[in-house]
Amino acid sequence: LIAVGSELLSAGRRDSNAHWLAERLDRLGIALVARGLVVDESERIASLLAAALRRSELIVVTGGIGPTADDVTREAVARALDRPLERDLEQVNRLMRRFAAFGRRFGPEQLKQADRPRGATWIDNPRGSAPGLLVIQDNTILCVLPGVPSEMKAMFLATLEPELERRSRRSFARSVLKIAGRSEPSVDRAIADLYDAPGREITILSGIGGIELLLRTDGADAEAARSALESVEREIRRRLGVDIFGRDDDTLAEVVGALLLERHLTLSTAESCTGGLLGAAVTGVPGSSAWYRGGLVVYSDALKQDLAGVSSSTLVSAGAVSEATAVELARGARHRCGSDIGVGVTGVAGPGGGTDQKPVGRVHLALSDADADLHWQMDLPGDRADVRGRSVTVALDRLRRHLLARGHVR
Amino acid sequence: LIAVGSELLSAGRRDSNAHWLAERLDRLGIALVARGLVVDESERIASLLAAALRRSELIVVTGGIGPTADDVTREAVARALDRPLERDLEQVNRLMRRFAAFGRRFGPEQLKQADRPRGATWIDNPRGSAPGLLVIQDNTILCVLPGVPSEMKAMFLATLEPELERRSRRSFARSVLKIAGRSEPSVDRAIADLYDAPGREITILSGIGGIELLLRTDGADAEAARSALESVEREIRRRLGVDIFGRDDDTLAEVVGALLLERHLTLSTAESCTGGLLGAAVTGVPGSSAWYRGGLVVYSDALKQDLAGVSSSTLVSAGAVSEATAVELARGARHRCGSDIGVGVTGVAGPGGGTDQKPVGRVHLALSDADADLHWQMDLPGDRADVRGRSVTVALDRLRRHLLARGHVR
Repeated sequence: LIAVGSELLSAGRRDSNAHWLAERLDRLGIALVARGLVVDESERIASLLAAALRRSELIVVTGGIGPTADDVTREAVARALDRPLERDLEQVNRLMRRFAAFGRRFGPEQLKQADRPRGATWIDNPRGSAPGLLVIQDNTILCVLPGVPSEMKAMFLATLEPELERRSRRSFARSVLKIAGRSEPSVDRAIADLYDAPGREITILSGIGGIELLLRTDGADAEAARSALESVEREIRRRLGVDIFGRDDDTLAEVVGALLLERHLTLSTAESCTGGLLGAAVTGVPGSSAWYRGGLVVYSDALKQDLAGVSSSTLVSAGAVSEATAVELARGARHRCGSDIGVGVTGVAGPGGGTDQKPVGRVHLALSDADADLHWQMDLPGDRADVRGRSVTVALDRLRRHLLARGHVR
Repeated sequence: LIAVGSELLSAGRRDSNAHWLAERLDRLGIALVARGLVVDESERIASLLAAALRRSELIVVTGGIGPTADDVTREAVARALDRPLERDLEQVNRLMRRFAAFGRRFGPEQLKQADRPRGATWIDNPRGSAPGLLVIQDNTILCVLPGVPSEMKAMFLATLEPELERRSRRSFARSVLKIAGRSEPSVDRAIADLYDAPGREITILSGIGGIELLLRTDGADAEAARSALESVEREIRRRLGVDIFGRDDDTLAEVVGALLLERHLTLSTAESCTGGLLGAAVTGVPGSSAWYRGGLVVYSDALKQDLAGVSSSTLVSAGAVSEATAVELARGARHRCGSDIGVGVTGVAGPGGGTDQKPVGRVHLALSDADADLHWQMDLPGDRADVRGRSVTVALDRLRRHLLARGHVR
């Protein structure tokens, strides 16, 4: 993958096209061996392209095919292929008709969009003016698409993806298993002996929202690949059990929501250190109003009392960051918001406010329902954003386990 | 910049080293012309390196210099430079002493870390075993660092950065101006004539949290560069005025917090569609407990009444997504949480729940203080996450303007 455009190399920019393309190619079973970003300079682009042409079966270039002087990708492709750049009069007519249909002026600067290296075919651009290019040389496919994400995606899906699917020689299946409540080394150890098997790939990714296992299996045909995937998934599920909270695009908040819905239960929250982040995660799920009533963000001690009903004696004796306060927050959320289950979170998010007894990262979490109050104390690593984010993950995961343990109530 | 490592090309992975390095190089005034990621294959790495060597003054390679069979960067560098790879016996001794000091076994697989292309010098790795490499050939510096971020950063800062600073021929200054309450095309039009000036670079970035203008000026010396920066900043500030909310690392929530502190005022929130996201943004600021009391997340109509005090007649006549409800939410937040200012947000975040009268993206925002109630109606673009995120940005920005308009109260 080669992305062309000086603006892409500005600090702080992300090349979202590459991430989208990598994901689509991965689904097609195409291994990505290199990707690059390069400024709008014809010789640099050509030099990268020439290196890629020597070693890859598929090269996708995005960007630099518009009408401006900066747009030099067509020229660079011709140079890398050592073919002349030729103006296609049919394409000129097509562009002029297109511009006329949209009532836009067709200026001479637009003409270069009808230039292509000898032997290249056009890829129609249904959403913009610049057409793409396709070159097949020996065993290599070189494809040039616009940098505008909506145009690039539409053209890839309409033209390139079917062609690649047709050429694909391997069958494979893939899934993502999502894990919470367990450290990365512990997951790694639990499945270490499963990594080394032919036709199987397991990648472990770790983040604030949990751990992901990317699974991928090859097979003689789609059925064999799927069956190999099922077998490795089954084995991992046997080992990690309830620590696996979901699959593919599932989120913890969605899984919790589905469990609550199934059990006809409703939820509310009372947050101190997370300051609304737990409510935001829960309400990020479309339709969450069916099972989430609302929440209290109680940042001051006065509000912890007035709004959530934490007793002043608890705040004085145990302090705002304590088991007792977390439990009273959970109860308060439940009563104030009229829900079946209440969650309370209080802690020291940092960077200031830590003490020897209550260091930065110390978080108390509580759940309250009609049967009981539950409590957990944690010391979470990282900066303010990490501590807050991890608190939300743990809260949702504990809630999930609690709901699973309660079983299915009708 | 070339990052080596098959794992970096997995779908979903981000190359955080490249972003860090791009930022450091940018500060040094070094223009990044290309960056790439490549799998652990010696010939591919060498081919990319050879292309880079022909066209760049500085090449930084990260990753692939550990002791495992996968680590082929040293070999690839020697191949690209067309120099032999030689084992340095002094480095072997240094590694053995190092391993002995840490009580680790020095196995034969570690030996390759003492191999370097002829003429390369070592870069000491204070945090790990693999030393880096520095090659200076004609006018080109080629530097090889480990892929482990903490090791890479320490070595870059200790060794490469001082060397690059010494060689730097240009003086420059930079800043970021942050803008809210204005569209990207409108900002673009307002400053279009400022883009084209020698020794000056203006980049516009747009996101859910607002618009950023990255400014950069060159000068004969540091003083001249800074003075050129001040002059372009002054001109942009003159044109955009109060739409500029901050500079460099400022966030809207921080700016709002500073204004509240200055005015000895406190804030609270009542959120429906944003579900806690506004509270989370506000409490993301360290020390926000000095000016933020807390908030209500009222997802159900019952809670809008019971907790925030929205009247049932308002909910029946105007509906939950309405000016009247937003205003009553803002008042309710203020009264319930005992703050000087209350903010209320209600809207249709989607994807479901939209109607002809109240489409997805419709958001009502209100502010309430002792003097008055203010209200804004918006139709925000994008998906659920966009609508919610943009609602938070607009809420904070309106609050900021309100505080500025109130003036400085002591």
